[in-house]
Order: sequence, then C-alpha cells, then structure tokens
Amino acid sequence: MATPHCFFILSLSLLLLFHGSFSLRQPRDECQVDRINALEPDNRVECEAGVIDSWNPNEDQFLCAGVAVVRWTIEPRGLLLPSYSNAPQLVYIVRGRGVTGISFAGCPETFQESQQLGVSTRVQDKHQKIRRFRQGDVIAIPAGVPHWCYNDGNEPVVAVSVLDVHNRANQLDMNPRHFYVAGNPEDMFQQRFDETRDPRGPRETRRPFMEPTQRECNNLFCGMDTRFLAEAFNVNEQLARKLRNENDVRGNIVRVEGNLQLVRPPRTQQERQEQLQRERGFGRRPNGLEETYCSARIIENIGDPTRADVFVPEAGHVRTVNSHNLPILERMQLSASHVVLRDNSVRLPHLHMNAHSVLYAVRGQAQVQVVDENGNAVFDGNVREGQVLTVPQNFAVVKRTDKDVFEYVAFKTDDNAMTNDLAGRASTMRALPVEVIATAYRLPLEDARRLKFATQETTLTSVRPRPGRWADA
Amino acid sequence: MATPHCFFILSLSLLLLFHGSFSLRQPRDECQVDRINALEPDNRVECEAGVIDSWNPNEDQFLCAGVAVVRWTIEPRGLLLPSYSNAPQLVYIVRGRGVTGISFAGCPETFQESQQLGVSTRVQDKHQKIRRFRQGDVIAIPAGVPHWCYNDGNEPVVAVSVLDVHNRANQLDMNPRHFYVAGNPEDMFQQRFDETRDPRGPRETRRPFMEPTQRECNNLFCGMDTRFLAEAFNVNEQLARKLRNENDVRGNIVRVEGNLQLVRPPRTQQERQEQLQRERGFGRRPNGLEETYCSARIIENIGDPTRADVFVPEAGHVRTVNSHNLPILERMQLSASHVVLRDNSVRLPHLHMNAHSVLYAVRGQAQVQVVDENGNAVFDGNVREGQVLTVPQNFAVVKRTDKDVFEYVAFKTDDNAMTNDLAGRASTMRALPVEVIATAYRLPLEDARRLKFATQETTLTSVRPRPGRWADA
Amino acid sequence: MATPHCFFILSLSLLLLFHGSFSLRQPRDECQVDRINALEPDNRVECEAGVIDSWNPNEDQFLCAGVAVVRWTIEPRGLLLPSYSNAPQLVYIVRGRGVTGISFAGCPETFQESQQLGVSTRVQDKHQKIRRFRQGDVIAIPAGVPHWCYNDGNEPVVAVSVLDVHNRANQLDMNPRHFYVAGNPEDMFQQRFDETRDPRGPRETRRPFMEPTQRECNNLFCGMDTRFLAEAFNVNEQLARKLRNENDVRGNIVRVEGNLQLVRPPRTQQERQEQLQRERGFGRRPNGLEETYCSARIIENIGDPTRADVFVPEAGHVRTVNSHNLPILERMQLSASHVVLRDNSVRLPHLHMNAHSVLYAVRGQAQVQVVDENGNAVFDGNVREGQVLTVPQNFAVVKRTDKDVFEYVAFKTDDNAMTNDLAGRASTMRALPVEVIATAYRLPLEDARRLKFATQETTLTSVRPRPGRWADA
Repeated sequence: MATPHCFFILSLSLLLLFHGSFSLRQPRDECQVDRINALEPDNRVECEAGVIDSWNPNEDQFLCAGVAVVRWTIEPRGLLLPSYSNAPQLVYIVRGRGVTGISFAGCPETFQESQQLGVSTRVQDKHQKIRRFRQGDVIAIPAGVPHWCYNDGNEPVVAVSVLDVHNRANQLDMNPRHFYVAGNPEDMFQQRFDETRDPRGPRETRRPFMEPTQRECNNLFCGMDTRFLAEAFNVNEQLARKLRNENDVRGNIVRVEGNLQLVRPPRTQQERQEQLQRERGFGRRPNGLEETYCSARIIENIGDPTRADVFVPEAGHVRTVNSHNLPILERMQLSASHVVLRDNSVRLPHLHMNAHSVLYAVRGQAQVQVVDENGNAVFDGNVREGQVLTVPQNFAVVKRTDKDVFEYVAFKTDDNAMTNDLAGRASTMRALPVEVIATAYRLPLEDARRLKFATQETTLTSVRPRPGRWADA
Repeated sequence: MATPHCFFILSLSLLLLFHGSFSLRQPRDECQVDRINALEPDNRVECEAGVIDSWNPNEDQFLCAGVAVVRWTIEPRGLLLPSYSNAPQLVYIVRGRGVTGISFAGCPETFQESQQLGVSTRVQDKHQKIRRFRQGDVIAIPAGVPHWCYNDGNEPVVAVSVLDVHNRANQLDMNPRHFYVAGNPEDMFQQRFDETRDPRGPRETRRPFMEPTQRECNNLFCGMDTRFLAEAFNVNEQLARKLRNENDVRGNIVRVEGNLQLVRPPRTQQERQEQLQRERGFGRRPNGLEETYCSARIIENIGDPTRADVFVPEAGHVRTVNSHNLPILERMQLSASHVVLRDNSVRLPHLHMNAHSVLYAVRGQAQVQVVDENGNAVFDGNVREGQVLTVPQNFAVVKRTDKDVFEYVAFKTDDNAMTNDLAGRASTMRALPVEVIATAYRLPLEDARRLKFATQETTLTSVRPRPGRWADA
Repeated sequence: MATPHCFFILSLSLLLLFHGSFSLRQPRDECQVDRINALEPDNRVECEAGVIDSWNPNEDQFLCAGVAVVRWTIEPRGLLLPSYSNAPQLVYIVRGRGVTGISFAGCPETFQESQQLGVSTRVQDKHQKIRRFRQGDVIAIPAGVPHWCYNDGNEPVVAVSVLDVHNRANQLDMNPRHFYVAGNPEDMFQQRFDETRDPRGPRETRRPFMEPTQRECNNLFCGMDTRFLAEAFNVNEQLARKLRNENDVRGNIVRVEGNLQLVRPPRTQQERQEQLQRERGFGRRPNGLEETYCSARIIENIGDPTRADVFVPEAGHVRTVNSHNLPILERMQLSASHVVLRDNSVRLPHLHMNAHSVLYAVRGQAQVQVVDENGNAVFDGNVREGQVLTVPQNFAVVKRTDKDVFEYVAFKTDDNAMTNDLAGRASTMRALPVEVIATAYRLPLEDARRLKFATQETTLTSVRPRPGRWADA
C-alpha cells in the first residue's frame, strides 16, 4: 500500500520545505559591520581540571550575528559541571574524546544497573542516557537543558561552542547566561561593553586562580533557603547545605578522583561498527522520525573525510550537519559545516543566503575577503588557527590558501543554511544568460561565455599551476 | 484501515514536535531583573458597572516578559463593551460566571432565531456563537479579534488577563492597545515610563469617575466622518452619529437595563452533562482537529480539582491548559497552569525551560524564592492574594506554604511551556549519575545517593512533620 | 481510495491553519504613528535606461511597518542589473511587460539550446528559467536570491516594490541593502535619519547623472582581489578585472544594444492560452504542491478584473494574492491586494487583524481616514496617484471616492493577511447580538437592528444616490 506512504512523504517534504528553508530570526536594528576583525579569545577562566577561553560577546560582529563563542579545554579526568544556558548551542569537538549527559526534563532513567548483579551498595544507580563524543563531532544542546561532560580519554578535550543568544528559544535577553546546577563556577563571559569601544581594542585578561576567600557561592541552590532545600530533597539541613558548594575553589571544571563509574554500554568492536552504521543512517532508516524527544540524536560527526558532502581531490572537502541529518536542529535553527581547504586552493566566492556564518579556524591559515553591499571589503586578511571570523548574512566571501592547509568549522544561524556561489558550475554566473553577462560587464560574447563556463568545479577549486590552464593567460 | 490513520497521527506528532516544543519569541536586548517585586495593581478605572485594575506595563519584570496584566471586575448585569487588542490574551476567571462573544472575521451568524416562532419584531436576530464561562475557566482571545463579555450571574465576575504584547501576532509595538468598537472607554494602561524609574516606585493612582465634560469621544468610529459612516452602514447621519457615543459617561463596562436577551441554547441538566463530556474530550474524540476556525474551542477549565494533571493528596494539585488540550493556543503561543499548594507544602525547585511564567495569586500566600544565573535570589519573600510575580525563563524558583493554602494561576509565554524540576522523582538530580553528583558536590557516595533518591514525589511535596521522616535528622 | 486523500487534505489544512493565520513577526519597541502622511518618493537615481524613485525608509510609518518602498521605471531595452537584497520583496507591475530571471542557488540551467541546431558559436547557451511578466502581475522575490529584469516591450516598465526589511528572512538589520552582482550601481536609498526629524520634512533630492570620475567601484567583486577572481573564474586577470565594472557610468539600469538574445519558449497563441490556464490553476490542479523549489511559481496576476475575488458592479472589485494562490508567499510572509474602487463608492470601514498594509495609489484619488486606538484620525485626507500610505495593523480605515475611480495595490506583511470589516454583511456589527448593539450605543432596538442589517454588501458599496435609499433620511 504505497499511496498513504507517498502522502506522508509529501507532508514531510512540505514540513521541511516550509520550515527548513526560511529563517526564524528577526533583524537587529543596526548591524555595525563596516570593519570586521579575526579575533582571538580575550578572557580566560582557569579551573582545577581545564580552562575556558571566551570571546567578548560585545564585539560588533557577534552582536550583529547574535551569538557568543567560547572554547573549553578539559583535561583527562576533568568533569565540566552540570549547567544549562539561555541559548541553544552547537559544540564542535576540535580534539579528544569523552562522554556527555544531557538531562531532558521528564525523560526516564534508561541506563540502569540490574539488581541481580549484586552490587555492594544498597541502591543500584540508574540515570539518563550517556553519549560518547570524539574529534569532529558536533553536539547540539538545546536551551534550558542541563548537561555535563567528562573527559575519559588520555588527551585534553578541546571544544568550541557557539551560543545562539538571538535564537527564539531564548526569551530573556542578548546576554549569554549559564546557570550551574552544582559547583562554584565563574562567569565565563565578562560583559565589558565600554571596553570594546576602546580604540586600543579588547585586552587580554587572564584572571588568576582565585583564593578561597575571594570566591562566592553562585550555583542555583545558593539563592534558596537551606531549610527549603532540605525539605525538597528530603534530607537533613547539613546535607542540603552541601548543595551550595561553599568555599569550592575548583571552578567550572573539576577533577575526578579515580575514574568516573558510569552505567553505560560496553564498547566492543562489533558495537562500534553498529554505532557507526547507525550514525550514517540517512537512507538506511527514516532518519530521526521514529525517535522521540527522550532518545533524540544530538551528535553527528562532520570531521570524517570519508563521509564528505563535497569532495575535490586536489582542493579539499566539506561536510555539513543540518536539520536533514540531525533533526533536532530543526528546533534549534542552527547548522554547521566542516571544511578542509588544501594548499593553493580557493573556496569559490559565495554568499550565505539565509544565515550568518561564524567561522572558527581549527588548523592552518588562509587569506579571506568579506565584501558588503557597497563593494567594500569589510575584512581582507589572514585567518589563523584559533581565530574566529563572522561572515554576515548576504555578504560575499572568498578564501584562498597559499602553502598551508586551512581547516575550519562554520557555525550557521539557520538549520538549513544555504550558500549561493558566485562562480563555478552551480553559481549565479551559470544561471545568467550569456547576453546578460555580456551586457552587464560590457564584454564581448566570447569573454562572457568564458566567464560563465570556464570553472567546472563547485564550491572548491585548486589553483596549483598545471599544464593547460588558461591557455590565453 | 489503520495504516493511514497511523500516518496521520505521525504527521500530527511531527507538527506538535516541531511547533510545540520551541518558542517563537525573540530575546529582548536587555532584561533588567536583578530585583523583582510582588506587585499589586497601581491603576484603576471605575465604570458604571465594574472596575478595571491594571499593573504598570513598564515594570522591569513585565518589560522582560513582554506582557501586560489587567484585572476586570464586572458587576451582575454588567457588559464589557466590544473591543480588540494588538496582543493575544489569556483570561482566567477568578470568580463568577457569564457569557462572552468573540466575533471571528467572516464567520457566519450561527445562533439564529427561527422565523416560525413569530417574534414580534420585523427581523429576527442572529449572531455569532456565544460561549458560557465560569470560575476556573481560561479564555483564549487572539489578537485583533473583537470580543465582549456579559455577567448574567448573581455575583461579580473577577477575571485576570495577561496580554502577550511581545507575541508575534502583534506587529505594532510593545504598548498594550485596546481598540473599542463602541462606547466611550478610558485607557486602562497609563504609560508612565519615567515614573517607574522613580526610586519611590510606582504610585497608586485612582482616577475618579469623571464628569461628562471631561470625557472625549474615543471609540474607533470617532475618527471617521459621520457622512462616511452613514453611507457605510446605509443609515441616516443622525443614527450614524450615535456610533460615536459622545458624552457617554458609562466607561468600558456598562449596565444592561433588564436582562440581555440573547439567542442561545438552554442549559438543561442533560446538556450541561454533555458539555462537560465534550470539554473533557481528549481521548474521546480527536481533540480540536475537526473544528474549523469559526467554531474553535477557546475555553478550558483548569480550576476543577477532579481533573488535575498532578495530584499529591497532602500537598495539592496542578492542572495545565496548553496547545495539547486547547489547540487554538498553538497560534497564540501561550499556556497556563492552575496550582493549589496546601499548607506546609513545597512546590519543588524548578525552572521554566522555554517560557516566562507570570504568576497571579488567587488565594492565600506562600514564601517564594527566585534565583538568577549567579545564584542570587532576585526575589525572596511572600506572595499574597491579588499580587503578581514574574518568574523569568530559566530562573530557578521554589515555593513553600506555611499555615495557608496558596492558590495561583501561572500564565506562560509558550504554548507548550516546559518545566524542569531540580529535585524529586523526575528531576535533573535523578538524571545525573551518582558519581557525578558525588564529585560535583564533594559528597560521599552514600550522601549523593540520598540526595538523588530520597524524594519520591514529583512537582509537589508535603513537609508536615510525620513519623519516619529523616531518621537521621 | 478516498481516505488517505482526506487525511492528506486534513494535514494540509492544519499546515495552512497553523502557519497561514498568525504572523511570524515581532513587535517594534515603539511605533510612532500619531500622524501619518501620504508620501511621494523623495529620492531619485537616474540611470542609462531608466530611473529609480525611492521613499525615505526612515519615515515613521515605514519604520513601524518595517518596510522600504521603491519604484522602478525601465525604458524599452533597459536591463536592471542582477542583484539581491537582504529583504524579501513583492513587486507590482504598474505598467509594461518584460522578462525576469531569478537564480535559485543550486538549481539547474533548464532553458538550454540544443546542439543539433548548429549555433555558430562554440558553446550553446543554457541558463535558469526565465519568466515573463505584464501589467497587473505581482512578482515574489525571496531574500538573498539574485534576480534581473529586462524590458522587451515597447513602453516603459513601471514597477513598485515593497521590501520587507523586518521580515525574519533578514537576519542583518533594518537597513534595506541591495547587493549587485554586476555593474556600478548607486545606492537607491539614502539613509538620512536626521533629516526625517527635520520639521520641514524630507526634501526632494534629485541627484544628477554623475560624471565618470565621481563614480566608485561598488559591485560585490570590487572587494575581492583580482587574482582570486581570476582563479575562481578560471580566466586571466585582465578579464577578471572586468567584473569590477570600473568607470561604468550606466548605473543600475543599462541599455542593451540590439535585442537581448535569450533562450526561451516561443509565445504562440496556443501557448499563451495554456499559460493563462496554468496561472488560473487553483481548483484545476493541487496548487503549488507538486512544484519544487527550482520551478516555484513566483508570479500571479491580480490586475485582471475578470478574476476578481470580490465584485460589486457599481462599486468595484478586489483581487488578492496570498499563500493560498501563490505558495512561495508562505515563506515570505507577504501578500497583496489590488483594488479598484469606482466613483462615489466606499471601501467599508475595516481593520487588518494580523498585518500592516502599505498602499500604493496606481490611479485616481480617494478620501481616506485612518483611526488609532484612541479614536484619533492619524490620517484624514486625499491619497492620489503615485502616493504611498501605510495603514498600521489593527488601525481602522475607511476610503471613499468622489468623482474619480481609485485604483490601488495594498502590500501586506503577512502571507494570509486578514481584514475584519466593521460594517456590512460579514462584519463585526453583524456578529454582535442586537441587544448588545442597543446597549453599547444607547439605541432603541429598532435602530440597533437597522445599524446591523441595513448594509447588504461586503467590502465595497456604492453610494451614488438612487431611488429607495434611506427612506427615512
């Protein structure tokens, strides 16, 4: 009985068409992006088992895009304490591996110890699903959902996170806010609105590892009466007081003594194989439709070159995560791409039709030019490993590598961000009639044809000198 | 033929999933909620047959939540004149009963007198559907839809209304605006932006019942030429002039001479029974799907304890109206809960993941603490009958009663507002592995287990001293 | 097999219901519309083959509605150069006919020359779909999509365009921005925020046709390195430099030498007939559902009186384009109506429930009154051919012609804009019970009945004196 199935597919297509292809954000009153800089983090919080570097959210480019950017470095056996934020975030794992727990409200504890195994303690543990992550993964964390993260590997976990504060899941305000359920964390963003207007630019501020006396109590339970907490948790007041983590100097990332004992599936070779297949699922199973909120997939790997969406052997490759391969992004209105641009290659000039693009340079460097509606280059320079550059919606951008490979991840403020190439096989230039090109650029027809048809690649092209290139140059 | 039905259910689930679970609002530039107060109304308009109390919409908590709050008291035989607003609103009936008419554009007049009955006048009346309401009802009124309200009972109708001015149905601005189709109403909100910044706080302003000479003409027809009105209504100019209600001193709520004669169904015992069953509909009939715009259900009772969603005999009960049981809320992006918290009980600490919560205290009082992302209590005090308190999105809140019962209604700025409990059986604490809790709070495993598992209830818990509680306390 | 079909229709209805009937915009902080004026364009850019007139986007009425308005006059053989904008736009063709090309990203070149025909050049041309337009057409152009336009007729093309800068497809800011892919265009909007506050009002500014030396390079390629462009387009640097159109004095609209040779279907009588039927499609085929993004219909004619939605022989006619007859408007959240109001006729008093209405007077004049929530007429005067007037959401409006016919097009900021008439057969007055009318306006029942039932028409009514009208006047 194929007919109802067709109708269903059609309904689904409509949903995707109507939802996935226009943004759900509102314009800012004024985007001041006459001049954009490639930025490094300018604030650092040092913790017991890691550091947190953040970019000043009051930079014009971040105010325009409505985002905040932060980078976590978690040492082996480091635990990032449970917290939630007023903004949905996409996290890209630059390095390392670990596990994360996302506690969805009202979902059952499905990772559970069996009673038969005779664990020595009175009560066996059970908790919500725990997910593994590794280098190249994108993790999607909705707004208001508490989550924690643990490095169970042998090298530091480095993760870059973009918080979409202008997202409509956030009804509060444009300040990125982290609410900690436990610990005695420091605010990782310093709101220094005036300093950003300082002509000398933002300063590097490294706050030292503070002494206990300087610390305050600042997790969520600090604002509640200890008696109320004792009553709510059905424990005595002495234990309830521990929820406040007073005089805790470990900061947002704490060290675990020994190894964290978690209830979680073993990781045999066979199971890893199955997991990999499940992750690649699109086409195998109707992706994401049968999953409920509680078991929603929130991780997708975009760093693996064998699964590239665009691949040009000499020039590089691109892989994108959006609401078509990670359905939870539909609600979060975010997506991301991972790009490796080999040496002497060009990411063809293009624009982002329906989203801002916040680029984090993972490795190497490239020359980048970003152009506004008046033909002015608002950015013309190098972007290097560890820097962030925002390409505003509709602005044109071109990237070119010289001797280095350039690897970057671009976070986009739409769950189905679309780019429009200006050159190449699937470009605006190809869409135009030759005579329109000839008239517009005042060219002979022959030149107009060359401009339109000469580049055979889409997205990426290699510019290493090779025989037969530009016979007329 | 079950299969298409399944597909249909699936499509529906998708709709609910994609629509119901993320908010459609945008963050404000700046939410100034470092200190929140429980507020009483500070403006009163006295009318011929009732009074209107309003809260200053320029209070920080209301600007942050993007709402305005007003309370209507309509005396028996009082008629609230037809008007519409630039913001959708949810109305909770605190007391009394009556009828309301909502005139949807283009819908037919379906309540009609039969010609055979030989009414004495030349033309029998016919008008759009009229709906009864009673204590505990929530009435959903979309933006731009004219409506009126009549008290046909023996006691005053008291109704609290939250106008969602920040809602996207409102394309105008953040000022709550009421457009009256008839009468000579007074503006119920005084826009006194400067006064709210006055350190002495907003003043109580009771405007006296004005003399005729002070009144102006201010319904919609006042701005139109009498000749145009005569032509549009096809009446003479003398009658057209009456549309302006000049020198009408009755205000927004007027008294009806005798009883208002309306075309409406009788209210026999049997019919009430049927109506009740229809209201409880969910599960019996596919709720709200077969209804068209014109016959949309707009009323749902949440005050009846026998239909509670959460019930803890010693602690109280909760009932919620959202887009799952009142489908029109899907477009209005609003929902509400009615809570009765018995004496010596705690509403467990929780946060609102995706909505602001605007609380109106119907009866009694409770101690309430509201905590921001820095662990500061932005509110720590009593909330008493007749007061309003806003709990911003993501802020943590705990409520505890002492000797009194505390009854309140919480209006929420999402049609599927979700709370995340921090303690209890379905809480974030339960979702965390015991070892994460032990590490985060620096506790022995035994204490971590107790913190996680000791409270068996969800949402509400009673704290009346009873045998066997806290053996170790 | 009718059942699944029903389910499908139902799903579709739900989509339309949930999407089409509430706006997706956010309110402005403050709408300053205490006084609205009918405005003429106050800025002109003269080009080689046409002129561009624009309205100051900083006028209060446009800031409130979040739109910008521009009028293009393209001479025969004039080509409007390819560009895209940060805002979606609706274009109404006031006069003339021509062709337009919209280049959707990633769509194939489907208008292609066959190789067998032996065209003399080496490579046959192929490009994306080209669409014809004519007087009375509305063209829907999404944000970020490059498009061009060519006048292949014998008279000037005059087109009025409303750019919805407050639309959520625009994540940038409230400034209307045009990004040109080619040429050396001038900015058609002058951002003169201070001047609009000048009590003397905005000035007429006619900028002269500039000398070459005054021109700058300002298309998108001007901000990119010539070497990068040469590499991206795989051409030599000399040709790449031509992309910058330096010293081009032709402006935004250029003249084509000879006739533009395009690959496009012939226009025989039979084919025109088929096209017309296809355009009228609704009811014949399931409108717009089978079309994909690449072949989306973007043009609908609303100027043809034979296809009117509302028709009153003596008073005029109305035709509307919205997401029900042009599905792409679903994403663009825009719609439009074309109205012809004959002499001595009234457009009945009404309000726009869920949208602003931006009116452009195509022909003739009328008296118009616009009323705010306090009963004040914020506009009371004549609107004449070539003027623009904004009617804010929820404000009441009445229009009356005297000796002239008044033809106008109203652009609306919702894809399913709804009006609510205050008088006539399908009005709020009809929805109210007679006794509510009598009480509200302090009228005898007989007068209340007359007010409710006397006008038999909806939308439009003629007021030419005729026998039997107002026997009692």
